[in-house]
Amino acid sequence: MKQIRIIDATLRDGMHAVSHSLSAEQMGAIAQRLDEAGVTTIEIGHGDGIGGSSLQYGFAKASDREYFAAVSKALKNCKMDVLLIPGIGTIEDLKVAMEYNVHTVRVATHVTEADVAEQHINFAKKNGLEAIGFLMMSHMAPVEKVVEQAKLMESYGADVVYMADSGGAMVPDEVKAKISALKAAINVPVGFHAHNNLGLAVGNTLAAIETGATVVDGTVRGLGAGAGNTQLEVLVAVLNKMGYDTGIDLYKLMDVGQEMIDPLMHRPQIISNDALVIGYAGAYGSFLLHARRAAEKFGVDARDILMELGRRKTVGGQEDLIIDVAIELSKQRKQNVG
Amino acid sequence: MKQIRIIDATLRDGMHAVSHSLSAEQMGAIAQRLDEAGVTTIEIGHGDGIGGSSLQYGFAKASDREYFAAVSKALKNCKMDVLLIPGIGTIEDLKVAMEYNVHTVRVATHVTEADVAEQHINFAKKNGLEAIGFLMMSHMAPVEKVVEQAKLMESYGADVVYMADSGGAMVPDEVKAKISALKAAINVPVGFHAHNNLGLAVGNTLAAIETGATVVDGTVRGLGAGAGNTQLEVLVAVLNKMGYDTGIDLYKLMDVGQEMIDPLMHRPQIISNDALVIGYAGAYGSFLLHARRAAEKFGVDARDILMELGRRKTVGGQEDLIIDVAIELSKQRKQNVG
Repeated sequence: MKQIRIIDATLRDGMHAVSHSLSAEQMGAIAQRLDEAGVTTIEIGHGDGIGGSSLQYGFAKASDREYFAAVSKALKNCKMDVLLIPGIGTIEDLKVAMEYNVHTVRVATHVTEADVAEQHINFAKKNGLEAIGFLMMSHMAPVEKVVEQAKLMESYGADVVYMADSGGAMVPDEVKAKISALKAAINVPVGFHAHNNLGLAVGNTLAAIETGATVVDGTVRGLGAGAGNTQLEVLVAVLNKMGYDTGIDLYKLMDVGQEMIDPLMHRPQIISNDALVIGYAGAYGSFLLHARRAAEKFGVDARDILMELGRRKTVGGQEDLIIDVAIELSKQRKQNVG
Repeated sequence: MKQIRIIDATLRDGMHAVSHSLSAEQMGAIAQRLDEAGVTTIEIGHGDGIGGSSLQYGFAKASDREYFAAVSKALKNCKMDVLLIPGIGTIEDLKVAMEYNVHTVRVATHVTEADVAEQHINFAKKNGLEAIGFLMMSHMAPVEKVVEQAKLMESYGADVVYMADSGGAMVPDEVKAKISALKAAINVPVGFHAHNNLGLAVGNTLAAIETGATVVDGTVRGLGAGAGNTQLEVLVAVLNKMGYDTGIDLYKLMDVGQEMIDPLMHRPQIISNDALVIGYAGAYGSFLLHARRAAEKFGVDARDILMELGRRKTVGGQEDLIIDVAIELSKQRKQNVG
């Protein structure tokens, strides 16, 4: 049977959808159930990774240390994984996770900035951890750039390199082109992380597997920001149907959804207009509110602002550009009318 | 630009999700907005098609005639389409629709029973209507059978033949195999209708288009029974991204969702465990409640009953078999324990 490795990110990416409000006790209890369902790797902690609990990124209910302690105590067979975004988390934060038997660290950078992951991956490998290079917002770079950056991750010692469609902006043809190129260019396993803004989280994950990805992500109920992630119990059902072995007990995973996740959810994981426009534009979700404010101020459609930000490949931190774009659109509009 | 024809089924398949409770006035108002958004064909009426309003299938808020009158008055460019399931609807029901300028009739049968559509398609063609043959639950038949039945539909005069994945049970590989075979075997356009039980409504629709389908369905917000249909505004966004022309104004369609559909919805259109197991098993959604009752009575898991019903390709009307399956599973269970 064809094997697929699944990394469950319910307790990390899913934290965005519940404002990082899980207690350490809740996280431990869910981790235990995921372990019992046969999940082999779970990523846990603040939505923005270790060190993420802050005024800027939102305070989590518990500290990293409290989450690590609760989860490591709960796990029997399943391995604990943490996300480290250099600039948010540090090697010091990772050392805390190591006190609690963390097995894997995913070092995540913008798709064009793999070089900032070098020291973190080096450190992880020297200390016996599995290190995964994780390229975020991969729709923003052409195939060659994604390949170049993945090769950097591999050269730093990454055991796996992930392509993350963080904005849920890719269609299957793009996924196939990029994953095939990665598969041809690097010697370590290729991973894929999807979001559902275009209703394609499951479809794109299958496209990634078809072209060579052997490690893929999901979250129970699709729990995640905006339209959410690949709904893991759905993905497992589909992979079962297609003859893949994930090692996960589908019914037990469905029960985790019903008994543990449904009661926590703040809102249903649907594709709202907001989520759709983010995926369609290929823009940052955090731009939504800014774009809406600017749209109102300058009498333009927030969707047009987001589309233009996507075209310009505007990245987080460039929020000032939103006003500029709104002003330009407003001028164009007046010229067209006049 | 590559053209794709879209048939919007919000006001027909979507009626299942609101217990057929739209008033004729509401239906007319939504039809008008869909027309203004550039939708070229809309299917309207009771969820089970013309003549569906009944004790058995649920009474609709208004009569077929009232819906036809309201919608035909509202439309300027868009064409009205009705679904006719022989056995539920009749040629007499279709004659009523013809008084209100119905343009298209989709004659729908179980995937193995195309022959019951012959007289209805003949009648439609003699009377100048567009006739579409619509093969439901197409996951239940192998490729050759689907092709054979599609050829029958074509031989009766169908202008288009649809393959409907009514149970949301197909994966992209199956869609591709079946649509390619249809494309090779018949000379009229091939259509595809998806449901989202496996999170693949959009992904499967793209797979169908890739292999030759040129007419596809969707509903605004995915409104439909269980996990719902292909979410139309999402599909249009994806097709726009891929360079297809649907003739639909995406922003206007999104606005229809927000202003007209969201306020009507009884529940969010998510993939619940129930919807997932129906797609996974390939069973009828109407079996859910029966399976759950039988499961409780005989101490087995309802999911196992549904899986077995799917394996046996049990069809609507064979509800008696549900008890038989539950008893068998219960016996097996005792033998395994003993």
